[in-house]
Amino acid sequence: MLDFQGDTPAYVASGTVKSTDGAFADRLRQIFESVGGIVQEFQPDIVVFESVFMHKNPGSALKLGHARSAAICATFEHKLEVFEYAPREIKQAVVGTGAATKEQVQHMVVSILKLGGTPAPDAADALAAALCHGNQRRMRARLGSGNMIAGQI
Amino acid sequence: MLDFQGDTPAYVASGTVKSTDGAFADRLRQIFESVGGIVQEFQPDIVVFESVFMHKNPGSALKLGHARSAAICATFEHKLEVFEYAPREIKQAVVGTGAATKEQVQHMVVSILKLGGTPAPDAADALAAALCHGNQRRMRARLGSGNMIAGQI
Repeated sequence: MLDFQGDTPAYVASGTVKSTDGAFADRLRQIFESVGGIVQEFQPDIVVFESVFMHKNPGSALKLGHARSAAICATFEHKLEVFEYAPREIKQAVVGTGAATKEQVQHMVVSILKLGGTPAPDAADALAAALCHGNQRRMRARLGSGNMIAGQI
Repeated sequence: MLDFQGDTPAYVASGTVKSTDGAFADRLRQIFESVGGIVQEFQPDIVVFESVFMHKNPGSALKLGHARSAAICATFEHKLEVFEYAPREIKQAVVGTGAATKEQVQHMVVSILKLGGTPAPDAADALAAALCHGNQRRMRARLGSGNMIAGQI
């Protein structure tokens, strides 16, 4: 979670939502309610998702689709603007190369946001996605283009 | 939508939720809000989903996972019991064979529920899934087994 109101993006919070073992719909419910609770608590204006590319395994793709959709649907009640960026775009934005490693992303997120500690890899990815959106937003402000996938406009 | 309060299941309503062309998150939102609206209107106690088996195409599996999850998540706010049955179980329940055609399912749904017209294939499948749950519930009442995937128990 980043605050873009100042001149530079400011760190607000980060973390990882986990679902416990259990029935599949219960796990979806955990993701849906966890993300909904975070949105409720922090009241962001914008949510950014990493887009998903082809999986080789249809079974994994089906599960990932369910989980990702539960997180997206949890934002609908709050009428956020929803954006998504490809993993390569996100890495490019923070590291300067679309082929960056997880460790490079973590390192640059710590550096850009001047963090006192290193967030877990998935949390660092999420912060990088938010930074990527900040960059894109500045560019869009200049160029008038966008890749919003849903929103209030 | 079926009413199981009497001796025999009674038809209440059926239909198909469609999403229009547009941004992917907007299409998820349409599914989420349509299903949420139906749940709000009819206030059912139970929702039944057809389970999904392996897709050959990971891209289709990913999309189906997102869409199906949006429908499932739309029921969470209302604390319904969520059940799922395999397509073969559903066909077996209404036609007597797991290899039944769509037309056979439509025919048997019309016959069992004494409908004046024939529902569209997907709506007939949904009614068949509800009938399947009714059968299973009767059996469970006798045997004490179940395959609830999430719920209030």
